[in-house]
Amino acid sequence: MIEDKNPQRTPLSQLGEFGLIEHLTKNFETSRPSTLKGIGDDAAVLDFKDKKVVVSTDLLIEGVHFDLAYVPLKHLGYKAVVANVSDICAMNALPTQITVSVAVSNRFPLEALDELFAGIALAAKEYRVDVIGGDTTSSQKGLIISITAIGEADEGEIVYRDGAKEMDLLVVTGDIGAAYMGLQVLEREKQVFQVNPNSQPDLDAYTYLIERQLKPEARKDVRTLLHALEIRPTAMIDISDGLSSEIIHLCKASKVGCNLYEEKLPLDPQLIATCEEFNIDSTTVAINGGEDYELLFTIKMDDFEKIKGNPNFTIIGHMVKETEGIHLITRADTKIPLRARGWDALEA
Amino acid sequence: MIEDKNPQRTPLSQLGEFGLIEHLTKNFETSRPSTLKGIGDDAAVLDFKDKKVVVSTDLLIEGVHFDLAYVPLKHLGYKAVVANVSDICAMNALPTQITVSVAVSNRFPLEALDELFAGIALAAKEYRVDVIGGDTTSSQKGLIISITAIGEADEGEIVYRDGAKEMDLLVVTGDIGAAYMGLQVLEREKQVFQVNPNSQPDLDAYTYLIERQLKPEARKDVRTLLHALEIRPTAMIDISDGLSSEIIHLCKASKVGCNLYEEKLPLDPQLIATCEEFNIDSTTVAINGGEDYELLFTIKMDDFEKIKGNPNFTIIGHMVKETEGIHLITRADTKIPLRARGWDALEA
Repeated sequence: MIEDKNPQRTPLSQLGEFGLIEHLTKNFETSRPSTLKGIGDDAAVLDFKDKKVVVSTDLLIEGVHFDLAYVPLKHLGYKAVVANVSDICAMNALPTQITVSVAVSNRFPLEALDELFAGIALAAKEYRVDVIGGDTTSSQKGLIISITAIGEADEGEIVYRDGAKEMDLLVVTGDIGAAYMGLQVLEREKQVFQVNPNSQPDLDAYTYLIERQLKPEARKDVRTLLHALEIRPTAMIDISDGLSSEIIHLCKASKVGCNLYEEKLPLDPQLIATCEEFNIDSTTVAINGGEDYELLFTIKMDDFEKIKGNPNFTIIGHMVKETEGIHLITRADTKIPLRARGWDALEA
Repeated sequence: MIEDKNPQRTPLSQLGEFGLIEHLTKNFETSRPSTLKGIGDDAAVLDFKDKKVVVSTDLLIEGVHFDLAYVPLKHLGYKAVVANVSDICAMNALPTQITVSVAVSNRFPLEALDELFAGIALAAKEYRVDVIGGDTTSSQKGLIISITAIGEADEGEIVYRDGAKEMDLLVVTGDIGAAYMGLQVLEREKQVFQVNPNSQPDLDAYTYLIERQLKPEARKDVRTLLHALEIRPTAMIDISDGLSSEIIHLCKASKVGCNLYEEKLPLDPQLIATCEEFNIDSTTVAINGGEDYELLFTIKMDDFEKIKGNPNFTIIGHMVKETEGIHLITRADTKIPLRARGWDALEA
């Protein structure tokens, strides 16, 4: 019985616009003290008392930012929230609310939207952000997701991109490059599947990489970790576009240069093994692969003792005078200018 | 020289993503005291001190919400901001900031985006809202605009949809139905143009209607007007989907019924003349046409003396018990149940 594979396909037109919004949002309860009024009026109402408010927004387009051939809708919903929450974390602020707008073409049944919103709801619960508003509409083509994330922080806690100084240490959380290699693995499997739809992929060797691609997490914990260590970063940014690109953003905003050390880059063993299998240089992947949603920040040299040996953080370089430029110091001790999308620099 | 008609068409790819964002946002200066940091970091930072924060968001899709065949891009940018600012006004709050995300297919040259952002910038200036963030990306098809509007108000000032009580008076600002008839005029001209591209339309008789459709304004002034009159509405909503639909939303949220009086509906003379020309019932247009961005609110009967005769406001009905239902009382004194998208009700 072929119907069993896809038992329910309810056309969106069956609910109408208001019915659809009510259906998709009825399970969103609010729990933040700062949420006075969530979904259901012309606007949400929030109360941050003496806290500062932090706001970030992102637009995700099918075929540009994601490919539904290998991203399940529930994961996509989760990841869309994570990407926005990560921007709030990158200000050293606490994520508190999000708005979620979605446009879909009529090729999506209600059950597909339910999957997407299940992922959004799961992330909202995981990160304790209230879904306080949004919009649901039809699109001419494909799926479009727009999320605005809101957070709060005391003024003194907020960390901008432009505060790094010469001699500051450059620190990254977690490990990097895995999300990119996860995507390479999934793209290879997609091609195999297109040639032979009956092939059963064996992805055991890549579970960490795939999880980093499909279900990344925002480093909401870093704010707490740094607070406990009594460290206030001098500058911070999240790694969405790739390490090299983010280092350049941070250096330009702070008007400093940087020396990044290849040997210090935190790489997961699975990443190294898979890079060897794919015959790709792991350093290239680590500095250019995006979507890790780790945090990159600078701290004063005086804070070195507080952070060294901490498994959550890796010191990967230090800031220098702006005129010295931004460089990767290789294992062979050569100095290569770092570029955004710097594949050329490394492949030369 | 055919090029003279379209002298500049710069492909978006020439600038790259970061170059494009910088180009489009470089003229956005912030002026609100509550904007501590606008565009240029992972997130904007705002300070509302003891005010409450009001947030609303909208997603606009080409081919669904607008047709570029008769909406100039500059007007579209302006209108997109107005639609969101209107939601903040409908909470009786002061609009203060917006984020703007845009996705475009590569059929749009840079000059088209410049037009769109010129309209956004004009509206931002007109309504004194700071553009504090956003995202610019490519789309698979058409133009997509996502705006989140933020506003502030004292807690006691904020007006929800659910506060209307039996015996309250129902009040509307300005006049209604004109934006809808403006669209009908433009659609007729589009069809004429498709048959004969050399025809020169004479739109003098429809200037008000077309302006209401192409360059609507949000009623930011109403907050000030009501404050001066010492009136605090019991419930408020903006008219984006049409009067009947919004009355039903307000009644359902407030758990009341309503009698709406046909003879009280504020119609512009140009609307009445054009409805006659198009052979459309002007009442049907007034209660079902959307996009007027006027405000609909209820006040206590005691406030009647403060508002009567005020040219900004028209009392169009009064609230009744929920069990009495929601009705239009016609000029012939018959009682017709009001429905959202209620064309059937009136054409029957």
